[in-house]
Amino acid sequence: MQSGGRIKVGVLGATGTVGQRFIVLLSQHPWFVLHALGASPRSAGKKYKDAVNWKQTVRTPNGVGDMIVKECKASEFEDCKIVFSGLDADAAGDIESEFRSADLAVFSNAKNYRRDPHVPLIVPLVNPSHLSIIPQQQSLHSPPLKKGFIVTNANCSTTGYVIPLAALEKAFGPIELLLVTTMQAISGAGYPGISSLDIMDNVVPYISGEEEKIEWETLKILGGVTEGDDGIKSFDMHARHPLRVSASCNRVPVIDGHTECVSLRFAHRPPPSPQQVREALASYTPDAQTLGCPSAPRHAITVHEEPDRPQPRLDRYYQDGAGVSVGRVRQCQVLDIKFVVLANNVSIGAATSSIINAEYAVLKGVVGVEGEVEAAVANS
Amino acid sequence: MQSGGRIKVGVLGATGTVGQRFIVLLSQHPWFVLHALGASPRSAGKKYKDAVNWKQTVRTPNGVGDMIVKECKASEFEDCKIVFSGLDADAAGDIESEFRSADLAVFSNAKNYRRDPHVPLIVPLVNPSHLSIIPQQQSLHSPPLKKGFIVTNANCSTTGYVIPLAALEKAFGPIELLLVTTMQAISGAGYPGISSLDIMDNVVPYISGEEEKIEWETLKILGGVTEGDDGIKSFDMHARHPLRVSASCNRVPVIDGHTECVSLRFAHRPPPSPQQVREALASYTPDAQTLGCPSAPRHAITVHEEPDRPQPRLDRYYQDGAGVSVGRVRQCQVLDIKFVVLANNVSIGAATSSIINAEYAVLKGVVGVEGEVEAAVANS
Amino acid sequence: MQSGGRIKVGVLGATGTVGQRFIVLLSQHPWFVLHALGASPRSAGKKYKDAVNWKQTVRTPNGVGDMIVKECKASEFEDCKIVFSGLDADAAGDIESEFRSADLAVFSNAKNYRRDPHVPLIVPLVNPSHLSIIPQQQSLHSPPLKKGFIVTNANCSTTGYVIPLAALEKAFGPIELLLVTTMQAISGAGYPGISSLDIMDNVVPYISGEEEKIEWETLKILGGVTEGDDGIKSFDMHARHPLRVSASCNRVPVIDGHTECVSLRFAHRPPPSPQQVREALASYTPDAQTLGCPSAPRHAITVHEEPDRPQPRLDRYYQDGAGVSVGRVRQCQVLDIKFVVLANNVSIGAATSSIINAEYAVLKGVVGVEGEVEAAVANS
Amino acid sequence: MQSGGRIKVGVLGATGTVGQRFIVLLSQHPWFVLHALGASPRSAGKKYKDAVNWKQTVRTPNGVGDMIVKECKASEFEDCKIVFSGLDADAAGDIESEFRSADLAVFSNAKNYRRDPHVPLIVPLVNPSHLSIIPQQQSLHSPPLKKGFIVTNANCSTTGYVIPLAALEKAFGPIELLLVTTMQAISGAGYPGISSLDIMDNVVPYISGEEEKIEWETLKILGGVTEGDDGIKSFDMHARHPLRVSASCNRVPVIDGHTECVSLRFAHRPPPSPQQVREALASYTPDAQTLGCPSAPRHAITVHEEPDRPQPRLDRYYQDGAGVSVGRVRQCQVLDIKFVVLANNVSIGAATSSIINAEYAVLKGVVGVEGEVEAAVANS
Repeated sequence: MQSGGRIKVGVLGATGTVGQRFIVLLSQHPWFVLHALGASPRSAGKKYKDAVNWKQTVRTPNGVGDMIVKECKASEFEDCKIVFSGLDADAAGDIESEFRSADLAVFSNAKNYRRDPHVPLIVPLVNPSHLSIIPQQQSLHSPPLKKGFIVTNANCSTTGYVIPLAALEKAFGPIELLLVTTMQAISGAGYPGISSLDIMDNVVPYISGEEEKIEWETLKILGGVTEGDDGIKSFDMHARHPLRVSASCNRVPVIDGHTECVSLRFAHRPPPSPQQVREALASYTPDAQTLGCPSAPRHAITVHEEPDRPQPRLDRYYQDGAGVSVGRVRQCQVLDIKFVVLANNVSIGAATSSIINAEYAVLKGVVGVEGEVEAAVANS
Repeated sequence: MQSGGRIKVGVLGATGTVGQRFIVLLSQHPWFVLHALGASPRSAGKKYKDAVNWKQTVRTPNGVGDMIVKECKASEFEDCKIVFSGLDADAAGDIESEFRSADLAVFSNAKNYRRDPHVPLIVPLVNPSHLSIIPQQQSLHSPPLKKGFIVTNANCSTTGYVIPLAALEKAFGPIELLLVTTMQAISGAGYPGISSLDIMDNVVPYISGEEEKIEWETLKILGGVTEGDDGIKSFDMHARHPLRVSASCNRVPVIDGHTECVSLRFAHRPPPSPQQVREALASYTPDAQTLGCPSAPRHAITVHEEPDRPQPRLDRYYQDGAGVSVGRVRQCQVLDIKFVVLANNVSIGAATSSIINAEYAVLKGVVGVEGEVEAAVANS
Repeated sequence: MQSGGRIKVGVLGATGTVGQRFIVLLSQHPWFVLHALGASPRSAGKKYKDAVNWKQTVRTPNGVGDMIVKECKASEFEDCKIVFSGLDADAAGDIESEFRSADLAVFSNAKNYRRDPHVPLIVPLVNPSHLSIIPQQQSLHSPPLKKGFIVTNANCSTTGYVIPLAALEKAFGPIELLLVTTMQAISGAGYPGISSLDIMDNVVPYISGEEEKIEWETLKILGGVTEGDDGIKSFDMHARHPLRVSASCNRVPVIDGHTECVSLRFAHRPPPSPQQVREALASYTPDAQTLGCPSAPRHAITVHEEPDRPQPRLDRYYQDGAGVSVGRVRQCQVLDIKFVVLANNVSIGAATSSIINAEYAVLKGVVGVEGEVEAAVANS
Repeated sequence: MQSGGRIKVGVLGATGTVGQRFIVLLSQHPWFVLHALGASPRSAGKKYKDAVNWKQTVRTPNGVGDMIVKECKASEFEDCKIVFSGLDADAAGDIESEFRSADLAVFSNAKNYRRDPHVPLIVPLVNPSHLSIIPQQQSLHSPPLKKGFIVTNANCSTTGYVIPLAALEKAFGPIELLLVTTMQAISGAGYPGISSLDIMDNVVPYISGEEEKIEWETLKILGGVTEGDDGIKSFDMHARHPLRVSASCNRVPVIDGHTECVSLRFAHRPPPSPQQVREALASYTPDAQTLGCPSAPRHAITVHEEPDRPQPRLDRYYQDGAGVSVGRVRQCQVLDIKFVVLANNVSIGAATSSIINAEYAVLKGVVGVEGEVEAAVANS
């Protein structure tokens, strides 16, 4: 199950945009080693380099180009301790389910199971504690699972802005009103994604399903896990302190990096000052950092003092896009506080989140056997 | 004072971005005829074509290229019935004041006098009735003026969104809360304006002074003119129904056309439905249309039903940019209603507004002598 | 066959990019009237407005939105005197052939018949005299045709640069060496065409098949029509004065307008000076102008003196894109002369060419009956 | 003179675009240590972080932000073994001359001394042997210099394409005809450089002075150094095999990376095949590599087999932009061979070239004392 003391992992949807990003990140990972790549039947059987239309600005990692692409069947991935899914939504539902049934641990970037009441929706710098639902997910499966499960990460536009929100709720208590207007990068739509004729010299003030995702996912992520009298756990959707979220989503001619303008109102009065908000954001230290996840950023939230930052072109690659940037923290004339968030949608907004989620699960013993992890960590 | 029955007009700042736009529009105007062009001393004395760095996508109008540029001194423009100012803010203060003192009617795109308590700030599809302050502006001048005055139009990002707001207040009563997030075109910054290195593949979440302008100007424009016991008129800044406005301004890589995401709450309960809002917007008919201003758009507000419109590249040139487009009218989870507005910042957001303001003033007799106007209109 | 004295025309591929452009132009045409719109079976039977994804910056012309889209079958177009084809290459071959066989006059923007030895490849400002091959095309058809034929126009990147080449050959005799490097707009690839991820902040130094098209089409267009001893006409491919053409094609992030850098060597020595070249270009008057084609530009070639022109954004819409712009005429250190050409690929590079070709054919009596044309022209 | 065994270096024009790039590269350099930063008098005396408008996508290197900026006077840099100049041309002439006179070794990116008959113009992957002119430059100075000299690197658009040309001349003998059409990135114009209004959705087919630079610099770089009967060395400008170069330069909306289409003819017949050219390019190993310059790329020229590469967005950062990419090697219908070159204008096209030149000079003993170099190399 190990290769030189490292943990074997697989990637589903390996030729796609998110899959390529998984491969870049995993090829340099201290614990994980790429063991199996899965893609559509028309790619299966080919060398990866012949199956992929590589669109990264770094070259295909050594050794990966000659790996033979497999079909996305659990039998092909049974040696993998962890499987990362960058599958498109139309394929992810069935395949991820089959993998889980085959007792494989799936960390998925797809949207299919985000609303499942037993699947955690985890932004690793916010709510990895939601992994606590996993035993229930396994026990309710028929037949019950020992190792298999699905963990999803959030939509790219949700991920970026819930990180500062989590920091603020931790410091100042519940938020009750939230308005967010996004300016999202084209890479968020995959490849080929947006036609150049639709976005050059243009803004498209609509992204299908995106506003609903933000408004719903925010509640699941920022909410807690409660346990009923029957011992059944469920996601409370921020119900103890009802939160109303209104999102307006726009596509802009930016390659990578979602910029989001956020206004919010806290439940507690008086609300914190902009300076208190800045300090709470800058000092936010998620458990994933404390615990030592190797892909977690050193600074979860970078707070900018310059009036015109963050900007996607200048700030999106800081810490390889694993943290987020916040700037322009100031009073809102209508709610309490407003600010700008920038998150790299292809890093923390996608593959990086899945990987940190997996690291966290490894460190918490949710994945694998203790000894293996220790070996991997020791070898890293 | 006339040329073939038309009204002689001048342009200040004629070589600048707004000045060029004034020239394009005025060269085709049915009533007005370009009589004098003013620019900085280093341009004065040159032929216009030798002084200007022409950046319009249409050619310099016939005859204009050979006009001799004058200095921006009132004595050079005394034959002009109307003077349009596209001056930069650092020059506009003194020059416009001198022109007014010389009893010239100035319609200015500059920001300098927008906050003056006796100068109307007019978006022509919203509040041309504020011209009623002009007699007071003239009488309080020392010495009192007969014909001279200054009328300003609003900042480009304010202009776009107050038009639908005015339509909504007319239909549904006062708005009490407003959040607006703008995505503004580069042409709003003039030429050379924004460095390409700052905006390509980027969003800049800050425009100096812009948020303050929107938040303040909205109150002056949407508010009324009240008369005190002493007979002195003043702008009430929407005081009868206090309105709180919160703006977040962004620069995006779009050449022309500001896109703005608006959320708002009405004072009256229950608020109108999205469909009622759509109907009120589509049927809005400003006085400038009713009165017959030739540069007013046929449709002040175009309401889009398609989910992904308006878009700047596709919609900004409709009606030569004299109207605005609204789309995505829907409920807001936090306030009442949200929608997207698109306005062409170089047309209704700048020169076109000044020209319609002047047309309105002509039709209302605020400028010129009745007979001249009738002749101009008859000849048009 | 007429509608208010105008000539009925049809458009094939009416929902596509080129088809939309045909519709915009034909809806304003003084002679032609849109009578039938053809598209794929899945669009047929729908109203045009429900079948099309309209991507023009002007609105759908009045009346067109409610036209019922037909299948691309000749029986549906039999009332049309002229059929314009904006079909994709994979459909154009069979459909255009069927229409010709049904004795319909087809003016096609598709590439399929450009290399046919009996089909003229016409750039209307260059070689409309190649229409002389039509009687042969008709007589060689089985059975012989009375009115049906196919005329093609050239690839968008060829069209732009052969216009100044034709002017130069007319003035200074044959060109023998030609190097052209193109910087082509994204609209040349149709919709959705190029993914935004492939072209934003990028140059793609390759367009499949494009260099071969330029190198071959240039010879057919600039060459003559010769008649053999057997009375059979053929295209001589510039054979009397062999011409070697080398093209390098690039896609750049420009929406409309192909910019091309040309270097050339004349056969005759000494070659003309840059000033002589400029004068020859500026004074070039194609037959389509002289004859009075209503869509021909007033200036076939605009010669720029400014050192930094033409530029696509500023110059592509001059004369509605029906002419071309040339600038930077200067000596080449390797060949004789070099210059820059700009042509609007969606206008003179596509639909406008087809329409002028048809106008020319009408005026020459190649299409229709003399009386009808006179009526149409008289009514225009 | 050393800091921890490293060689102290200074940067002139440290707050400018090229200066910032020098600082990023030098802060990670194995031999060199940043010791002094010079900028204009208005920046002098400030902390670097307060003087600079940092526009790099990486953060200011640790320690640099607090360095105090100095005036560009030789007395402030006397501890520096090497001074890199990123000065603007209007300042570089006098300042670099003063530094040389003060016996400092200057490696300049400015254009001022490129045409000086005693100053070498060095592209480090092509002609570092031209350093042989340095003793003459020193001895002809009045008074003669011991250590001071000026070495320039080439214009960014020249640098990119002379590297493959050098490889080809080495393999196949002299080139006699060259046509190059460039598509240059906006960063080549510095900051603020090009207005976004001039380049978005546009191509500007002109860059002032650029074509002349390419045409002249190519001859100096690819030519040899000859010694007259009087022992005086001079640059032969490729005179033994006259070379004619014709350049057409364009600015395109690309942030970094110049793409150039090259056609050329060799003097020797028959010319090599495209495959032979590909092999010669791929196997080219410049002396800077062999000698062990730490900033030299591992692959001087990457040859692409894919038909649509190189592309600036995908290929410009390979090897940190220190090498160049060549693709589309094929026959030219007019000359012999044509291909596409991509070079990162801010790396090998600017600061990286200066630094490799300095490394080469260090290794060749042109700079510094043997022992110091050995220490630096040993410590690296």
